[in-house]
This record gives sequence, C-alpha cells and structure tokens, in this order.
Amino acid sequence: MKKNAIVLLSGGQDSTTCLYWAKKRYNKIEGIFFHYSQRHEIEYECAKDIAKKTSITLHEFTIPAFKKIGGNSLTNDIEMDDSSKKIPNTFVPGRNIIFLSYAAAVAYKSGITDIIIGVNEEDYSGYPDCRSDFINSMTRSLQLGLERDINIIVPLQHLSKAQIWELSDELKILDIIKKDTHTCYYGDRSKLHDWGYGCGKCPSCILRKKGFEKYITLKR
Amino acid sequence: MKKNAIVLLSGGQDSTTCLYWAKKRYNKIEGIFFHYSQRHEIEYECAKDIAKKTSITLHEFTIPAFKKIGGNSLTNDIEMDDSSKKIPNTFVPGRNIIFLSYAAAVAYKSGITDIIIGVNEEDYSGYPDCRSDFINSMTRSLQLGLERDINIIVPLQHLSKAQIWELSDELKILDIIKKDTHTCYYGDRSKLHDWGYGCGKCPSCILRKKGFEKYITLKR
Repeated sequence: MKKNAIVLLSGGQDSTTCLYWAKKRYNKIEGIFFHYSQRHEIEYECAKDIAKKTSITLHEFTIPAFKKIGGNSLTNDIEMDDSSKKIPNTFVPGRNIIFLSYAAAVAYKSGITDIIIGVNEEDYSGYPDCRSDFINSMTRSLQLGLERDINIIVPLQHLSKAQIWELSDELKILDIIKKDTHTCYYGDRSKLHDWGYGCGKCPSCILRKKGFEKYITLKR
Repeated sequence: MKKNAIVLLSGGQDSTTCLYWAKKRYNKIEGIFFHYSQRHEIEYECAKDIAKKTSITLHEFTIPAFKKIGGNSLTNDIEMDDSSKKIPNTFVPGRNIIFLSYAAAVAYKSGITDIIIGVNEEDYSGYPDCRSDFINSMTRSLQLGLERDINIIVPLQHLSKAQIWELSDELKILDIIKKDTHTCYYGDRSKLHDWGYGCGKCPSCILRKKGFEKYITLKR
C-alpha cells in the first residue's frame, strides 16, 4: 500500500530531488513552503513553479520569527561566514525544528504519515539540525506529541552532493534541477552554468558546483 | 549559580504560577507569548499585565498556522467537546511542539538554558503534548537540533489543579492568580468567583473551579 507524504519544498536542489524521488513512491504528495524572511523571493518562485509542474498542493506559511530573533546571516543583515566557526552563521537556530513541527501539524490534519526533508551528509558538518540523531529524536517527539505514527523520511541522508546529482540523473530530472531549482544565497540567476544558476561564489553555490563537477568526473 | 529562564506565559493560571515559581529560582527571566488565533484577546491582556508586574521582557510571536490548518475548536469555529473522544477537539495539534521550538530559538539567541512550561497532570489525559515522555523527547530534540544544553522545566508536572492552587498559596500569589489570570475558553470576565473570573461552565473553568474547591477542602 502506497502512503501519502508531505515534502518540505524550498525550491532548491535537494528538496526538489526529494519531491521527484517521492513521486515514484507515494500515492499522494503535498508540499510545504516557508516564507521566513529569506534574502530573496526566487526560492519561492521556484517552489511554486515546481509544485505546479508536479501537480502538488503547496501549503505556505509565513514565519517572521527568525528575523525577529536575529543573529544569523540568512535572515538578517550579517555578512555570511561558513568558514571559521564550529557552527556557521548561516545556521538559522531552530529552523528545521520549527519547519518539521509545522509540517507535522499539517500532516496530522491531512492524515499524512510521512514528512520528507532533504537534509544530507554535506549539511551535517555545520548544521546540528541536519544530523541523523536529531532527525531520529525529532521523529519520536512528533510521534509522542501528536500521538500519531508520523515519520520523518530523509532520502538524501547519506548522499554527498555528487551523489544527489547522480540521483537526479537516475530520476531523469537533471534538466529540471539545473534550470528550475535555486540554491544561490544571493539570488543570482544571471547566467546558466553547467550546474545551474548562481553566483558561483557563495557557500551554497560552491557546494552545488563542486558536487556537480565531482559527479561528472565519477560518471566518466 | 542561578541560571536564566524563559517562561511560556499564556496569561492563565498554570503559566503564571510557573512564572512566580521561577522568580524565586532564577537570576533573570524572560517571557514568551503566542498570538495563535485564540478565541479572545483577554489572555494577552493578562499576560502583558503579569509581565509588567513582574518586570520581565515579554517576547511575542504571531502564529496564524493553527487556524489555517484548522480542525480544532480553540482556533476554529467548531463546538468545543472535551468529553467523548480519546483526544478532545480542544487539542491544537502541534501547539506545544511549535511553542517549545520558538522558545528554544529565543533561548538560543539569549543564552538561556531553561524553558519553563506549565503542563501538568490534569492535562495529561487528553493532550499528548503535555505528557512527560513527550517533554523528555522534545528536550533531547532541542538539545540535538541546537547543539546546546537546553532543558524544558515542568514545575507543575506532577501536580493536580488543587495542588497548583496550593502552590500559589505557598508562593503568596493567590490573589494574583484569582484576579489577574484568565482561564475561561469563552473569555467571560463578568463576575469574580472564589476561583477567579470565568463562565464556570466550559471545560477549562470546570477544571479551575473543581481544583479550587478541592484545595479549599484539603486546606480545612
């Protein structure tokens, strides 16, 4: 029996890959997008476009809290620094905890059991809310707090960015990933590279670009 | 060494008792209030007033999601029913999960380690997100997701409503609890009873009233 799922869709490479991965495995899929004072609205445009192309309902929630609380470089006017510190300042404290909580509330109402999130190996180093011990604990918290058999599914958990590119190749969505998703922190879509749009210099673009180059090397 | 804490302050009896309990134990306290489409604004007026009287900063967040998601009688126009079902329809799915997540994000930013919430024994029967197994799991999830030693403190966990009245007597805040806090689902403040303001008929008033009567009987 195929189940229903809700996918956390940011409009980026990872969540879009998750959505197409899920399309092959689930009966019905819904998406959830968060307006959380991102630096630009391009991610939202991408998410809407991808939801339309895949014919899924996209739930939308506005969460001004992260900007209000402050102290991170994604929602606040702080220079991005992913390099030196133990936890980079692009870490938005509580983001995945809050996103998963909202997704669980929607899932509860819609009778959905599986929440799909695109966290993966390369996020692990910096962001504590992407690691499997957190995901496992959060799954249990949602199950207990809602008294429902809700699960957090992490299809990309043990994949590198190169392997995520490889997965999108297997799913035959390479072109969609390149053209329709957005990763760049600065919202740059002025030029289409082999690996998609982006400035090519921000931490997010560098991860995406390096992953693509490695995937191409491995493919040869 | 006294630590700092953030108290989830709803303007009701339980959270106000927690705040005064905490005042004796912590160095510095902040409060957090959520506008989540409650049926009335009286709770907010009470919370603001209590925060002012205790000289604490009150963080405020607006969460329209519960009403948007729907399906419960607290934020939506459904007749309240706490009687027949396993989980009453006054249960707002995900409420404590989301509230604790927001509180943790604020705590992270402010260097606060303890999050205080007024869940207690009598909430247990109906609401899964008030039980200790949930609180323990959620504590772990917050610690892992934020990589911080954040704890959820539940001073009323094993207390009945009568014992909460008794605690407020010990804390010398009986009069504050009676006059300054609000419990009634319907926002009725037309008459001051022995146990405070309220319609006396809604599930919340009945709990408060019965608890008070039991406390008076035990005191004699």
